[in-house]
Amino acid sequence: MAIAKAVKEALGSSSMIRKMFEEGSRLKRQHGADRVFDFSIGNPDLEPPPAFHRVFNELAREDSPGSHGYMPNAGYPDVRAALAEKVSREQGAALDASLIVMSVGAAGGLNAVFKAILNPGDEVVVSRPYFMEYRSYVSNHGGRLVEADSLPGFGLDPVAIEAAMTERTAAVLINSPHNPTGRVYPARTIAALADALRRQGGKTGRFPYLVADEPYRELVYAAETPPVLSAYEESIVVSSYSKSLSLPGERIGYIAVSPAVRDRDEVMEALIYATRILGFVNAPALMQRIVARLTEERVAVEVYARRRDVFRRILDEAGIAYAEPEGAFYLFCRVPGSSGDDRAFVDLLKKHLILGVPGSSFRAPGWVRFAYCVDERIIAASSAAFKAAMKEWS
Amino acid sequence: MAIAKAVKEALGSSSMIRKMFEEGSRLKRQHGADRVFDFSIGNPDLEPPPAFHRVFNELAREDSPGSHGYMPNAGYPDVRAALAEKVSREQGAALDASLIVMSVGAAGGLNAVFKAILNPGDEVVVSRPYFMEYRSYVSNHGGRLVEADSLPGFGLDPVAIEAAMTERTAAVLINSPHNPTGRVYPARTIAALADALRRQGGKTGRFPYLVADEPYRELVYAAETPPVLSAYEESIVVSSYSKSLSLPGERIGYIAVSPAVRDRDEVMEALIYATRILGFVNAPALMQRIVARLTEERVAVEVYARRRDVFRRILDEAGIAYAEPEGAFYLFCRVPGSSGDDRAFVDLLKKHLILGVPGSSFRAPGWVRFAYCVDERIIAASSAAFKAAMKEWS
Repeated sequence: MAIAKAVKEALGSSSMIRKMFEEGSRLKRQHGADRVFDFSIGNPDLEPPPAFHRVFNELAREDSPGSHGYMPNAGYPDVRAALAEKVSREQGAALDASLIVMSVGAAGGLNAVFKAILNPGDEVVVSRPYFMEYRSYVSNHGGRLVEADSLPGFGLDPVAIEAAMTERTAAVLINSPHNPTGRVYPARTIAALADALRRQGGKTGRFPYLVADEPYRELVYAAETPPVLSAYEESIVVSSYSKSLSLPGERIGYIAVSPAVRDRDEVMEALIYATRILGFVNAPALMQRIVARLTEERVAVEVYARRRDVFRRILDEAGIAYAEPEGAFYLFCRVPGSSGDDRAFVDLLKKHLILGVPGSSFRAPGWVRFAYCVDERIIAASSAAFKAAMKEWS
Repeated sequence: MAIAKAVKEALGSSSMIRKMFEEGSRLKRQHGADRVFDFSIGNPDLEPPPAFHRVFNELAREDSPGSHGYMPNAGYPDVRAALAEKVSREQGAALDASLIVMSVGAAGGLNAVFKAILNPGDEVVVSRPYFMEYRSYVSNHGGRLVEADSLPGFGLDPVAIEAAMTERTAAVLINSPHNPTGRVYPARTIAALADALRRQGGKTGRFPYLVADEPYRELVYAAETPPVLSAYEESIVVSSYSKSLSLPGERIGYIAVSPAVRDRDEVMEALIYATRILGFVNAPALMQRIVARLTEERVAVEVYARRRDVFRRILDEAGIAYAEPEGAFYLFCRVPGSSGDDRAFVDLLKKHLILGVPGSSFRAPGWVRFAYCVDERIIAASSAAFKAAMKEWS
């Protein structure tokens, strides 16, 4: 019993994905990295915008005394104020600095939120499919993830979510733009969900939080991502600069809370306390100061849009159907034919040097995820491989 | 029930310390920051060494493609290799890169360790006094902190620790150089503890880990801090650059595991998995690359040594006894007289504009902690205030 039982079990079940990655590396060594169409990982390949480089160098030259020391656990007051302004604009709500807690990426922020709000056995409702790490983020803090179905085409279904709620429901967790489907939930859906949450609160006396994981908010291709904080009183947005500024390795994100939240001071104190005792202590100092100066900046979203179009054309030509991709950088494709065996289809694609992730890894068997945060030339070059694979599959 | 019950209770009990900090801020506003002798907080005030500024600027100018992206969850392979070399030297053990996991500071590292090794109800033994956040780091992951007495003068007592161990003991947690006492545990004490742990393992079949929290390792004033990884097979060192390079706000640290540990691969996988699912994901990218180039550097320890000497003289003259300060930047003082009322003594000192932390906050009532990571002039200027306070106290 060298390690915790729960961790040992988890290592066992995650070995499938690890095996897949290892096989991907093997294929690249064997065939050359350029000949493998690796659409498996959501690691943004675009560089941060030029303004990042400028501010980074400015702060390096200044390197002012105390600038790498502790600050309040919630972050620098002026950084929180800058973020509050940005979030207020995006969310159509009037946040001040006290409603922002800087976090170690969105993953760190989500863990702080669940630590702050979950009692043992509390439930968090999520719509299928979803990013599987959510299971750990909830169970880490004694909670239990409860799944609800989404609509055909992967729209959020407030009716299914309402049906999944119980007196133990502490929160509903949504993610828009969505990983793995690329869907963006429209304002009317958010409004309907808010109504459902209010009904639930009226019935049980416990108003569940709406926790919105929004790292892809700025990666949208048509309309803006609709706001959440102005739509429901008990809402909490968690986001990061991992995608919008391509800084995933730097672990910089934030938690933003609705100004209308009940017990506002207590909620903010709990989030700050959770950030501290989980060992984050505070978001990395330098990156806090950098992102506060870049609230108007984002990566070249049009590059992702172009890649999406190239990829769609290839899938269309190969006869592979997919969910309408409105944001993020994923194409979620239906396994062609009647078997719906996503693992078998992924295995076949691999023979043609195409790497994707089976939908089962997101609790959506019968689907496959391709990430297009990959050079456009590699996407374009995959066309023949897709066609060949489809020939073999049918 | 807006927040978790356990968090609500913790917020209530930590409000005492918060009140103290708020009162400190009030005193500084009222009297001027220079007139208040604030020895309450362990926030290193020394600047990072000049080499840090140089490397920071080099990396900012390079800002090479992909350098802010994801890397493996354990950290960059070359950074882990550089750290393995440094730790091998310090610990007299032969570590390779696979035994290092880069962490979000030592606090993040400790949380990952306890997530990786604790089953519900498992116990972690710690010697009193101790840094109170340890309680949360253990309870976050379902464990229970068990206290053992230290020797008079705050030496580690392997006999007391052995007596505190049960079949549920997953680990013993030590901290040397020690917060709040400044003690450094000698090699013979570490060896005696290792023997006790081996006996425990022989008896129960479960060899507890020895987890050593070592952020102050390089802040010592006479001998070196003795190694741990070469002293006991099942040992794990957690450290950071918060003190040795004065980078606490940047959250950069690491976990280093003994090459002799049982089930080595499984233990490393568990630590990496815990780092990922707790939402750290990885240690901040830029700071990883910076500290890897600064393994020979540290802040000007002689400045801390000088302050310590100035502070000791003041305490000697005031007639206040203290534990022998061998490392870190704390003086742990006995409350003079027979009452042993540390809170009352801290209150009296505050009237004389001296701020310290009651030993009760470290589970050592009857003592007071002064942090000397404070300008030497402020330390020197506190002499008269200490004398006046002592006159009033007796």
